[in-house]
Amino acid sequence: MTRQSGTIFQPGGVSIALHTCTQKDQSPCSYMGNEGKAPKKKLINSVDSCVDEAVCGLVRASGGLSLLQGHRVVLRSDLVNLTGKVALLSGGGSGHEPAHGGFLGAGMLSAAVAGGVFASPPPASILAAILCLHHAGASGVLLIVKNYTGDRLNFGLAAEQARNHGVAVDMVIVAEDCAFDQPSKAGRRGFVPGCLPSFDLPPGDMELGLGIHGEPGIKRLKVASADELVKTMIDHMTNPDSQSHLPLKSGDSVVVCVNNLGALSCLEMAVVTGATITCLENRGVVVARVMSGSFMTSLEMAGVSLTLMRADQETLRLFDAKTSAPAWPNLSSVCVSGRSYVTDPRAVSPRPQADTHSEGPLSAVMRKALEMVCSTLLEKQEELNSLDPIREWLQDHVVPGCPGQLLSVLAGLVQEKMGGSSGALYSLFLTAAAAHLTENNAAAWASAMHAGTQAIRRYGGADPGDRTMKASSGAESTRDLTAMAGRASYIAAERVTLPDPGAVAVAAILRAVLESLGGQK
Amino acid sequence: MTRQSGTIFQPGGVSIALHTCTQKDQSPCSYMGNEGKAPKKKLINSVDSCVDEAVCGLVRASGGLSLLQGHRVVLRSDLVNLTGKVALLSGGGSGHEPAHGGFLGAGMLSAAVAGGVFASPPPASILAAILCLHHAGASGVLLIVKNYTGDRLNFGLAAEQARNHGVAVDMVIVAEDCAFDQPSKAGRRGFVPGCLPSFDLPPGDMELGLGIHGEPGIKRLKVASADELVKTMIDHMTNPDSQSHLPLKSGDSVVVCVNNLGALSCLEMAVVTGATITCLENRGVVVARVMSGSFMTSLEMAGVSLTLMRADQETLRLFDAKTSAPAWPNLSSVCVSGRSYVTDPRAVSPRPQADTHSEGPLSAVMRKALEMVCSTLLEKQEELNSLDPIREWLQDHVVPGCPGQLLSVLAGLVQEKMGGSSGALYSLFLTAAAAHLTENNAAAWASAMHAGTQAIRRYGGADPGDRTMKASSGAESTRDLTAMAGRASYIAAERVTLPDPGAVAVAAILRAVLESLGGQK
Repeated sequence: MTRQSGTIFQPGGVSIALHTCTQKDQSPCSYMGNEGKAPKKKLINSVDSCVDEAVCGLVRASGGLSLLQGHRVVLRSDLVNLTGKVALLSGGGSGHEPAHGGFLGAGMLSAAVAGGVFASPPPASILAAILCLHHAGASGVLLIVKNYTGDRLNFGLAAEQARNHGVAVDMVIVAEDCAFDQPSKAGRRGFVPGCLPSFDLPPGDMELGLGIHGEPGIKRLKVASADELVKTMIDHMTNPDSQSHLPLKSGDSVVVCVNNLGALSCLEMAVVTGATITCLENRGVVVARVMSGSFMTSLEMAGVSLTLMRADQETLRLFDAKTSAPAWPNLSSVCVSGRSYVTDPRAVSPRPQADTHSEGPLSAVMRKALEMVCSTLLEKQEELNSLDPIREWLQDHVVPGCPGQLLSVLAGLVQEKMGGSSGALYSLFLTAAAAHLTENNAAAWASAMHAGTQAIRRYGGADPGDRTMKASSGAESTRDLTAMAGRASYIAAERVTLPDPGAVAVAAILRAVLESLGGQK
Repeated sequence: MTRQSGTIFQPGGVSIALHTCTQKDQSPCSYMGNEGKAPKKKLINSVDSCVDEAVCGLVRASGGLSLLQGHRVVLRSDLVNLTGKVALLSGGGSGHEPAHGGFLGAGMLSAAVAGGVFASPPPASILAAILCLHHAGASGVLLIVKNYTGDRLNFGLAAEQARNHGVAVDMVIVAEDCAFDQPSKAGRRGFVPGCLPSFDLPPGDMELGLGIHGEPGIKRLKVASADELVKTMIDHMTNPDSQSHLPLKSGDSVVVCVNNLGALSCLEMAVVTGATITCLENRGVVVARVMSGSFMTSLEMAGVSLTLMRADQETLRLFDAKTSAPAWPNLSSVCVSGRSYVTDPRAVSPRPQADTHSEGPLSAVMRKALEMVCSTLLEKQEELNSLDPIREWLQDHVVPGCPGQLLSVLAGLVQEKMGGSSGALYSLFLTAAAAHLTENNAAAWASAMHAGTQAIRRYGGADPGDRTMKASSGAESTRDLTAMAGRASYIAAERVTLPDPGAVAVAAILRAVLESLGGQK
């Protein structure tokens, strides 16, 4: 690429794509080896090794993390900083990455324990993590456990064992799930229940309130728009008739988490995030902060979860505190609601100059040349009818007396009306040429033509001999060239035996200009 | 949930899942409305509005961003900080979120221009962004453009127009793609070409070196393991026979970007990240930093791209500089290669105490009781053969004279050999009870039993009357109860007419203990 002008930054990169999976293969079950079938088309080495490798991959890539030998336990590598403090430990099944290991760091977790895919971690590993934190000097260990029976039991067992070892340990249960209308004894889930997934949605259906492994939800809906869907979710979460609702009234301030369950595109996530903010603000709720992304996934589940936390100033101060946790997003501490988020260009820019031109001695000849170019090309090829706008413009506009101004006007017309790469190339040529036509003489036109072709070479990355549209004195000479740049270079390597259509057009333009000027003299 | 003991943290949350799409629907084409079909099952409001809504969603959620009125242009909201500095502007088609708007902030981009899905942004919007930065006081504007023809032309055109407006503007082309063996005039892509996607991989195949919209790559491979795949990619990127290779030799230091093209699970990403570090280190390359995540996606393409940048100390200093860009990950500035990332628990913990017990006067009776419990339950139910390990243990171990020690040993056996929720519950009971049996009298046993049941209530979230396994004096009374906690509560609401099997087991245990003790007296 040394022939290209301009600075080129070239680190090395390459991509790989697997075919996206079929519906059946894409359910989380495929990881569990159910139905006797090996999982297919996953970018892993083996089902047996994937959890250990994922935990190791996270730790390897994150300078602040360490692995507890013999366990699927991720530790902060700066355990010494925990001396005399209460250590925070969480964990749960794998398949929910970046949870929980991604949330270790200053100001967040001290350790995380991973189970197998969608399985609660073994009490022995939880105990090992607790004892490690204890022996590192922590004054106590707080277990942060999602409200799923398996996790409650396993973490509870480890807690009891740790107490028998003399460790000060306590547990907090996170239970934000608002799905169920009626209280069940299992309680509100922390979105990490652990039974085998039973997720089987027919096409076009959505499931509301499901568990993070596809445990049955509370409602099945037809796929709706993002706006409708967000409204349904927030209505349900805040419905006072539901025992598990979050009381939320106008004036309340909230932190919102919009969590990708795995397979939503980032574009969809951004749409849902905007819809969530709007929906809450329409109820008079103050959206203080928004975190949007993949925080607690369910392998590649195509879905989203919304979590709202009411937040006063003290909560926000804690929420905004810096952390080194690798999965924590880079958030602003500006209140989302109430801030001005649209910039009016008129507020920044000075008044645009009036776009009027005055006629001059050259206007008549340039008008004639333009008319000849248009009619020549329009006769020649139907697909060039994008020149019509120029003819229409000629009918009710003054042709500027300054050739440079004319070329700028034409550049704008071509860019607006023609579009595509051809429009951009013509417009680029005209724009670059225009700057050199402050006066009207052969030298100025020569340097204008040169500047125009140079601009096309620079931005188009093309040179004489490449089969792509640009100024060419001999369109016929393009007949036997191979496309080297532009779209044709991506799609075909074989030679073609027609002259390049772009070159034909340019030659016709120049011929028409010459004829009109010749008739003038 | 007020009946549960322990602290419960309950923000509000709810989830939604769409069915994952079929192969055809999942291709990026479905956004383009090709084949006359409307896109299905996407969490958007409409194809026409999704780009504007996504841009707005990003800006709304990010305190540091602003929207340029009338354009798909994202600006830093602190433009005043650009006074006298060179502003940085990038952009490209949509569908690649969080690029480019997510990379705005102190130390990164000043503005980003978005086109339609997989379409280069219009020059008019690029020009509007440049002029806005210029009028805000920037001393110049640098355009950072990926090496795709459409972007080169549209950004180039806007650059020329901006120059005619008197703005100091320059352009850098990013071209890291190492896919092509032979140089093509279009050059190494910045992974954002813009022709219509042509992605059609048969199941089980992978495409190496494809463009970010599925433009044809260079090789089609059978789906391989993550390790093999990463090796293939790095081999290809660094192959000196390839004109586009990145020269990389042992001892070189690199920054690695492992980029999710959209639909890989975070678990897969972690596996690939670990494999990439290992592969590079096996070649003697020093991995200085790793960023792993979704940075430049292609809607929900199931694939990954790897980018390597050779980095000296000065490059690393710049890479490590803090930024407020919302999509920039929370990275450590510790060198990935060379650091110790495994914590040896023996280095933290004191020596574990020896696990030996001495016999006592109660050993004989407790041995007899245990043998009776085992044989009773083993006769009763085949599925309880997880008690076998206890019988095996009895054969070659001393029964501790202290009942508390015995219960601790049994807790460990049950936890290790039985597993599941039942194992955890029994073990929890035994562990919590053990702490109260420092002596052997009725009061101690009573408080031990009480502590055991309390632990089960606390961590299992169950109470008398719930149909779930726990100590129950009348197993038959569970016959007509509805499961309120544990797994049964998730899967069935109807009544069952058999007594709870866990309660039957507990009753049998107590009966066996009583009988053995009765025989003793």
